[in-house]
Amino acid sequence: MKVFDLAQPMRRGMPQSPNHPAYTHALVRRHGDQVRPGGGSAANDIVVTGTHVGTHIDALAHVSQDGLLHGGLRAAEVQSDAGFARLGIDEFPPFVGRGVFLDVAALHGVPVLPPGYEVTASDLSAAAGDMEIRPGDAVLVGTGWSRLFEDKSGFVGAEGGVPGVGEEAANWLVARGVAVTGGETIAYERIAPGAGHATLPVHRILLVEAGINIVETMLLAGLADAGVKDFQLILAPLKLVGATGSPVRPLAVVP
Amino acid sequence: MKVFDLAQPMRRGMPQSPNHPAYTHALVRRHGDQVRPGGGSAANDIVVTGTHVGTHIDALAHVSQDGLLHGGLRAAEVQSDAGFARLGIDEFPPFVGRGVFLDVAALHGVPVLPPGYEVTASDLSAAAGDMEIRPGDAVLVGTGWSRLFEDKSGFVGAEGGVPGVGEEAANWLVARGVAVTGGETIAYERIAPGAGHATLPVHRILLVEAGINIVETMLLAGLADAGVKDFQLILAPLKLVGATGSPVRPLAVVP
Amino acid sequence: MKVFDLAQPMRRGMPQSPNHPAYTHALVRRHGDQVRPGGGSAANDIVVTGTHVGTHIDALAHVSQDGLLHGGLRAAEVQSDAGFARLGIDEFPPFVGRGVFLDVAALHGVPVLPPGYEVTASDLSAAAGDMEIRPGDAVLVGTGWSRLFEDKSGFVGAEGGVPGVGEEAANWLVARGVAVTGGETIAYERIAPGAGHATLPVHRILLVEAGINIVETMLLAGLADAGVKDFQLILAPLKLVGATGSPVRPLAVVP
Amino acid sequence: MKVFDLAQPMRRGMPQSPNHPAYTHALVRRHGDQVRPGGGSAANDIVVTGTHVGTHIDALAHVSQDGLLHGGLRAAEVQSDAGFARLGIDEFPPFVGRGVFLDVAALHGVPVLPPGYEVTASDLSAAAGDMEIRPGDAVLVGTGWSRLFEDKSGFVGAEGGVPGVGEEAANWLVARGVAVTGGETIAYERIAPGAGHATLPVHRILLVEAGINIVETMLLAGLADAGVKDFQLILAPLKLVGATGSPVRPLAVVP
Repeated sequence: MKVFDLAQPMRRGMPQSPNHPAYTHALVRRHGDQVRPGGGSAANDIVVTGTHVGTHIDALAHVSQDGLLHGGLRAAEVQSDAGFARLGIDEFPPFVGRGVFLDVAALHGVPVLPPGYEVTASDLSAAAGDMEIRPGDAVLVGTGWSRLFEDKSGFVGAEGGVPGVGEEAANWLVARGVAVTGGETIAYERIAPGAGHATLPVHRILLVEAGINIVETMLLAGLADAGVKDFQLILAPLKLVGATGSPVRPLAVVP
Repeated sequence: MKVFDLAQPMRRGMPQSPNHPAYTHALVRRHGDQVRPGGGSAANDIVVTGTHVGTHIDALAHVSQDGLLHGGLRAAEVQSDAGFARLGIDEFPPFVGRGVFLDVAALHGVPVLPPGYEVTASDLSAAAGDMEIRPGDAVLVGTGWSRLFEDKSGFVGAEGGVPGVGEEAANWLVARGVAVTGGETIAYERIAPGAGHATLPVHRILLVEAGINIVETMLLAGLADAGVKDFQLILAPLKLVGATGSPVRPLAVVP
Repeated sequence: MKVFDLAQPMRRGMPQSPNHPAYTHALVRRHGDQVRPGGGSAANDIVVTGTHVGTHIDALAHVSQDGLLHGGLRAAEVQSDAGFARLGIDEFPPFVGRGVFLDVAALHGVPVLPPGYEVTASDLSAAAGDMEIRPGDAVLVGTGWSRLFEDKSGFVGAEGGVPGVGEEAANWLVARGVAVTGGETIAYERIAPGAGHATLPVHRILLVEAGINIVETMLLAGLADAGVKDFQLILAPLKLVGATGSPVRPLAVVP
Repeated sequence: MKVFDLAQPMRRGMPQSPNHPAYTHALVRRHGDQVRPGGGSAANDIVVTGTHVGTHIDALAHVSQDGLLHGGLRAAEVQSDAGFARLGIDEFPPFVGRGVFLDVAALHGVPVLPPGYEVTASDLSAAAGDMEIRPGDAVLVGTGWSRLFEDKSGFVGAEGGVPGVGEEAANWLVARGVAVTGGETIAYERIAPGAGHATLPVHRILLVEAGINIVETMLLAGLADAGVKDFQLILAPLKLVGATGSPVRPLAVVP
């Protein structure tokens, strides 16, 4: 059995969307601050973070269209100081199931797709080859961009855009009944050069219309390097009651 | 296949140790605050939390004895504003392996063990019965206390104490070469009535001496109710670089 | 010239209302963590806090009645992810003006008023004596409770109630056209035994109806001990854009 | 009497040093989330912030040289999870005293000094003219840069440098026995083009050697526009126990 760790490391200063509270970590108590009789000592931390920071999963509550969440729920009626009474990340059942990796960068013979590249339905179909996509699968889409995570400004890609799934490809996934999908960039979907994160049609298609959760900023380079395409995916986000997302440590397990 | 969710829900006001920064969650942006052209809207959150809050895992860096961490590392040399350069939770490899549940409450025919009860080596041995404990296993110890999670002051157990693993039982686990161990209470180990969290000898034995991580505040009532004792445990904490622990969503998978 | 510091110290674990995010402070970087060439080093911190914690001032945006803020503004129209577009604490002009201290505890010959005691209009009138209250003054009401700040559970006063200004006294202040008022307890107004902070009629009268800001958890023992009743009050809250309140360090200056 | 507000507004996204935790503000509870019987409702917030963010004051504990703080205190002996036992911002007595404004930008006939400009002793002397600087005064140095606060990247000035007090000018201030000094930029002292905040000799001279606190990111444009040079300065930072600094709302009062 081999386990692939599909999460990027979380540390202060890592690349993230400026739309979300920045990840901060600090030691609160260090060893030596308070030594107990007997010589023992405990250290601890504080973490401040948005829920769409680092490798994370979007809850269905994250996006609305015309005031409505997935299933026609009125956002205004389920959001409050307690978070979302419905469709928060606590409603996402931990996923333990089949994962498939559609490596679009490898398909095109490049380590990383160019900024602003739109992944199409044909890309996904060609990357799948004769591997069947079944209802309930988790489909991870490779752009190679997890290799750029340490290049902060490039990774966020404000000016040059970011490659990712386009509307056509999103509909291809919906048609196959996938349970969840993920990618290597902050937004998952394609960001056109200069467009920023202003309109995100693929989020609308997946989260609002189809009820498919999205995992972002995944580390997929290990799968790409090993040529692993079919595996057991484990996706167990924190049970943050009412939250619109959660950091997560996804694992791919091959027998 | 059946998946048991072994994490308690995380929400403001949940019971936690007063030694750690309190868990706080707030919606930052709600639907309707900023509606994009086209009618889309995204909501998001901020989370503030200690790393030993809710269902969580202790890194080896969490506890020192006489200034030394596991393996004789000097704590003062590896702790800084970047957290722990060694033995932080980011060094814990995601665990996907055999888990066993030793239900000491069931052994004694009670739903929950009494406050301050010390789980002994004989308890663990009797609860295991003819089920073998192997090197590398994850051993979860049942006290029934995850059933008390909604009773905040009782769960923290400041005055009456809390049941848990004692020193003898900890040594029993070490002798069997377990990889990781977990329980249902905040401290995992027994807290004598009135003792508070001042001295934690079992943490010293497990984290410092043996290098065995501890999972705390687990939800094990589901395993107890189903009588499940042997399963695949998945333990994938957030990759918080340099942190002394992390919230986690452990899963038990039975074929 | 003598300056009286009217703020309680802010530290982890200080008494505060459980309705607000807890005050937390941690050193992020300590001296020695990162020493610059030449031997210099800088330490810094992180603070997490509610805005109604420690000595603080309520913005008019803090309380609404039937959906309306002071001046009939609809709360729903001015609140968003950016905070309050109107009546946030950033709209409070720093106060530098006359302050008067009405020491109701001294009036009754006690160091602290009993839990649940209602300060009445006659109390205020008698405490003022022949000192005139003028429009635009800041009136600070003494209950002696700043002396109890270190007694955490007593100060919060969940069960026994807390002394403070009642509705009649609030109307007395409104009638005199005061600009701002303050007190020594968390809620400023009287909390009946067992009542908790569920209904706060004095907040409605002052913040919503009269547009008078309230300063809470002030340290007034120094004024009481010195018998100072008439002074220059300086009240300069942080300019937190859109916030419902702010911690503040009020000063009383006597020539 | 006229009161000048010398603080910049605090809001998400304002320019700040990347060395400190970012300022974040969110409404936790909005009006309508929890309406009490009777129709009342309270809104509140959470704030996360570094202590050297927005208009703020440096505590003497902020900087050390060769492991020593002001007065020869060993930093390692006074820093802990409780912050600094000595020289934290809680030891700064609120300042109510004479303030003088030395407008070096006006001296040079420009609204803002160029990036990287070093304010010299002659600049300060010429800006003072025949106005005497006395021991115990607070000296505010005008560079005009508070006018650039809304130009985020320019204000932080990573590449082009930032104007400010140089070593010679710092010694001039020390020689006059000033109690505290302040300026309009993040670092107060001059940052050479491309230098970043790596070495800060003026901080060493003022905080470590002379024991003079520094106020940064002040809004001094109002004083400059009004030509006010001599006033009462009020400086009352939050009483954050053990912290290396605090946000503050300084006021200048002219009769």
